[in-house]
Amino acid sequence: MFELLSQKFEEKIQLTEEEKELSRKFFTPKKLRRRQYLLQEGDVCKYVTFVEKGLLRYYTVDERGQEHITQFAFEGWWISDLLSFLTGEPSTYNIDALEHCELLLLSKAAEDEMLERIPKLERYFRILLQNNLIATQKRLASSLNQTAEERYSELIQSCPETLPQRIPQHMLASFLGITPETLSRIRRQLTLKAQGTRDKVQE
Amino acid sequence: MFELLSQKFEEKIQLTEEEKELSRKFFTPKKLRRRQYLLQEGDVCKYVTFVEKGLLRYYTVDERGQEHITQFAFEGWWISDLLSFLTGEPSTYNIDALEHCELLLLSKAAEDEMLERIPKLERYFRILLQNNLIATQKRLASSLNQTAEERYSELIQSCPETLPQRIPQHMLASFLGITPETLSRIRRQLTLKAQGTRDKVQE
Repeated sequence: MFELLSQKFEEKIQLTEEEKELSRKFFTPKKLRRRQYLLQEGDVCKYVTFVEKGLLRYYTVDERGQEHITQFAFEGWWISDLLSFLTGEPSTYNIDALEHCELLLLSKAAEDEMLERIPKLERYFRILLQNNLIATQKRLASSLNQTAEERYSELIQSCPETLPQRIPQHMLASFLGITPETLSRIRRQLTLKAQGTRDKVQE
Repeated sequence: MFELLSQKFEEKIQLTEEEKELSRKFFTPKKLRRRQYLLQEGDVCKYVTFVEKGLLRYYTVDERGQEHITQFAFEGWWISDLLSFLTGEPSTYNIDALEHCELLLLSKAAEDEMLERIPKLERYFRILLQNNLIATQKRLASSLNQTAEERYSELIQSCPETLPQRIPQHMLASFLGITPETLSRIRRQLTLKAQGTRDKVQE
C-alpha cells in the first residue's frame, strides 16, 4: 500500500529505514469506490490525501448547479483543500472518486507529529508545495491570457498519457472553463494539424 | 536592513541568535529606484527576493504590448519567478519597482547552502509556500468563477490598507483582468453601497 509514497519520498529526500517505517504509522489507508466522496462542500477538510491508486477530481458547484473542476489527482499526487485543512473552516469544495481509489490519509495532528519526529519531511513538503505553486501560477496566467486551444495542449502535455481515456470529455471541458462543444472543436483541429504534420514528414 | 526578515522568520520558526546571524550572510542587499527592473523578460531569474521596503509588480507583456500584472509585492513579501529560478530557463516575466525599494536577494546556491546549514528554515519556506499556494488557488478559482466586483472586494480585503493609494488604478485593473473603466464603475458602486449601509445605520 505504501510503495508509491515511499518512491515519491525517495525522489526528493533520503530517509533511513527507521524513518520510512515510522512515517507509515501516521497515515490511514482508505478505499473509495467510484462516485464516493472524499470531501463534501460544507464539511471541514480533515486530511491531506496521497493517491496510491485511482483518480479523483476537486470541484465547486455554483448557484446554478454547474460544476467547476479545479484539479484532477492521479496516482502519486496529493489532494486536499489546504485552506479548510489549515484553518478548520468548512470547505467550499467537493472531492470525489472518478475511479476505484486507494488512498493514504494524513490528519493535521498526524502531520504535525510526523514533521516533528522526521524533520527531513519538511524538505519533502517544501519542494512539493513549490512545484504545486509553479503549476498553479502557470494555470492562473493561462486562465487570464491564453486561448482554450493553448490551455488544452498544455494540459495534455502536463498529465499522464492516459488522461483523455480516463477523464470524460465534459469534465475536461469544465477544468478548462469551456463548453464540451468548444473542446470537441479544438480536438478535431489538433488531430487535423497532427495529420498534416505527419503527411508533410512522409512526403 | 534585516529587521523585517527577522520578524517574519520569528512568526513561523524559532532561530537561535547564531542561526539568525548566519542566515543574514546568505542575502545580498539591493536598492532599486522607482521604475528600475529586478527581472526582465528573457533573463534568468537568479534570486528569490524579500521586500524590506517598497512595492514591486510582477507582469508579462503580450504580443500587442499589453501588460498583465500577476502579482504585487509589498514590505514583508517575497517575490520571484520560481519556475525560472529553479529550472534556469529564461523568464517570461518582468519585475519592476513601483516605489523606491530596499531588497534582500537570495541566490539558488545561497538558498541551498542556507537550508543545509539551517534546516529549520525548510519549515519556514514550507509554510510560506503553503500560504502562497492557498492564495494562488483562491485567485485561480476567482478568475474562473467570480465577477470583477467580487474579485476587487477580495483584493482590497487581502492587501494592506494603503493599497488603493499606492497602486495606480490602471495597474489594479490589469491585475484584475478588467478595463480601467470597469474598475471605476465598480469603485463608484461600492462607495454608494457603503454610504447606503452607513445611512441605514444612522436612521
